[in-house]
Amino acid sequence: MRIVVLTGGIGGARFLVGVREHARAIGAEVTAVVNVGDDVRMHGLQICPDLDSVMYTLGGAADPERGWGRVGESWVVKEELAKYAVEPSWFGLGDKDTATHLVRTTMLNAGYPLSAVTAALCERWQPGIGMLPATDDRLETHVVVDVDGERKAIHFQEWWVRYRGEVPTHRFVFRGAENAKPAAGVLDALGQADVILLAPSNPVVSIAPILAVPAIREALASGSAPVVGVSPIIGGAPVRGMADKCLATLEVEVSAAGVGRMYGPRADGGLLDGWLVDSSDAGVEISGVTTRAVPLWMKDEALTVRMVADALDLAKVAR
Amino acid sequence: MRIVVLTGGIGGARFLVGVREHARAIGAEVTAVVNVGDDVRMHGLQICPDLDSVMYTLGGAADPERGWGRVGESWVVKEELAKYAVEPSWFGLGDKDTATHLVRTTMLNAGYPLSAVTAALCERWQPGIGMLPATDDRLETHVVVDVDGERKAIHFQEWWVRYRGEVPTHRFVFRGAENAKPAAGVLDALGQADVILLAPSNPVVSIAPILAVPAIREALASGSAPVVGVSPIIGGAPVRGMADKCLATLEVEVSAAGVGRMYGPRADGGLLDGWLVDSSDAGVEISGVTTRAVPLWMKDEALTVRMVADALDLAKVAR
Repeated sequence: MRIVVLTGGIGGARFLVGVREHARAIGAEVTAVVNVGDDVRMHGLQICPDLDSVMYTLGGAADPERGWGRVGESWVVKEELAKYAVEPSWFGLGDKDTATHLVRTTMLNAGYPLSAVTAALCERWQPGIGMLPATDDRLETHVVVDVDGERKAIHFQEWWVRYRGEVPTHRFVFRGAENAKPAAGVLDALGQADVILLAPSNPVVSIAPILAVPAIREALASGSAPVVGVSPIIGGAPVRGMADKCLATLEVEVSAAGVGRMYGPRADGGLLDGWLVDSSDAGVEISGVTTRAVPLWMKDEALTVRMVADALDLAKVAR
Repeated sequence: MRIVVLTGGIGGARFLVGVREHARAIGAEVTAVVNVGDDVRMHGLQICPDLDSVMYTLGGAADPERGWGRVGESWVVKEELAKYAVEPSWFGLGDKDTATHLVRTTMLNAGYPLSAVTAALCERWQPGIGMLPATDDRLETHVVVDVDGERKAIHFQEWWVRYRGEVPTHRFVFRGAENAKPAAGVLDALGQADVILLAPSNPVVSIAPILAVPAIREALASGSAPVVGVSPIIGGAPVRGMADKCLATLEVEVSAAGVGRMYGPRADGGLLDGWLVDSSDAGVEISGVTTRAVPLWMKDEALTVRMVADALDLAKVAR
């Protein structure tokens, strides 16, 4: 059995821990297709927050308290950069993380595609699943905002980290997406998949940038594998992160139903065959999509594994 | 009064502390023209060991024990890079240092010349003197060696740090020197100088790469300012570093006389008007060069200031 997971962010990384464990139990292969919209070049370093979150989390090196970056991180490089008064100063550039970015940037500058660089980094981390960036091309999420009385497009990281989303926000733009091709291996993985899961990641800035790559959206929409999404919204609020702010910008209701309808039923040009919502959201109905309500809180690995099993069960009947 | 110092390495940096103090006392301006032959790109970072040694030493941030790099340095980035098994692993890349290299590399990649980058970094360090790289062009010292039964040219840093000079060594090559132009400001500084000092730096790998820039050597040879060198060799041994190994490669005697003759008298196509040697080397004679013997050990700042005063005194009578 082959499982492909579209994912991004910390929630997506934690979900993958459950996918990996369940896959080991049932002898399945897992490939994660990871959001690159958050990627940014800062201080000459190519930083891939979502790929790193997945890699560090599955490699057992993520910081469980802070929610991102490496456990036992130190901040000498960041403090020194601040003393040189170079911008951006608001980004959390850890020392351990810096080494990852140096290795990645050196390889990218030497001409290796991001997918090959990711594979090289994973030789150290041994995530136990296949890890692919959505695209090897440049694709960045920018956010149209009003700052200091001026309307402008800023990088997603600036919106997220510097402003915590607390600025008038008009829309999200996936720069480069239209011309982006799926990274090496992505279309093969999708074509051979027995089931495709949408992780309970932020639908607007983690999942949507992946789907903004035309050939990926097309592969999902026209493929034979059932697509099951897991709701990132429980009882009208995101489990973590700022999905509520992102959804509000799109005028999408912050609810399991709202996100499910945004992804949409396959029959109606959407993606979903099945939609897994939390028990507290039982009763959600989306025309053309099979919904099921189960506990969705990823409080520990066992509960996450249970969730994944439920998603795979739903896939069997959803299409 | 305007003083220009050709310099490189730790000895040169410490000498400059004395030059700066003496210049403050007599109201002189100082410009250091710094060796760039040691410069190297590693892990995508442009590293300038001699510029950094001068900058950190004059900025009061150099490590006095280790002799290079920053005081209070940490090594997280280096340890992490080693865990990725990327080469080179033998280079001492400190965390604080990494920030300097990131700022420099980002500016260089944006198109700023090294001289402008150095000026920008010095806004933080306030060295109290003018600091110019010998050239803004690429100039690297390579070393022709025998390693594993093979003759090859390796970067100077690999020879110095990885092999500690302990490999059969045939010659030093200053790659790029022939076509290198002096950095912005260098020819002006040399042209306006009242005296030019050669710091007691390694003559083969710190001073010679500066002189390998044709227009710099020409400016010294044909200029009106007296040129006084300070011997890096005392009593047949280098004060620090590996000048002995470097001189042996060139079949130059490891002595104050040997180095003085290598620089050579101006009348004979060389550079020197005056040559300052240690008291223990009193009696050294170099045809066409005025020599003087004074204490040359830079044990503290006061002694270094005294040495500088002696060098300037010698300049008055040497030409």
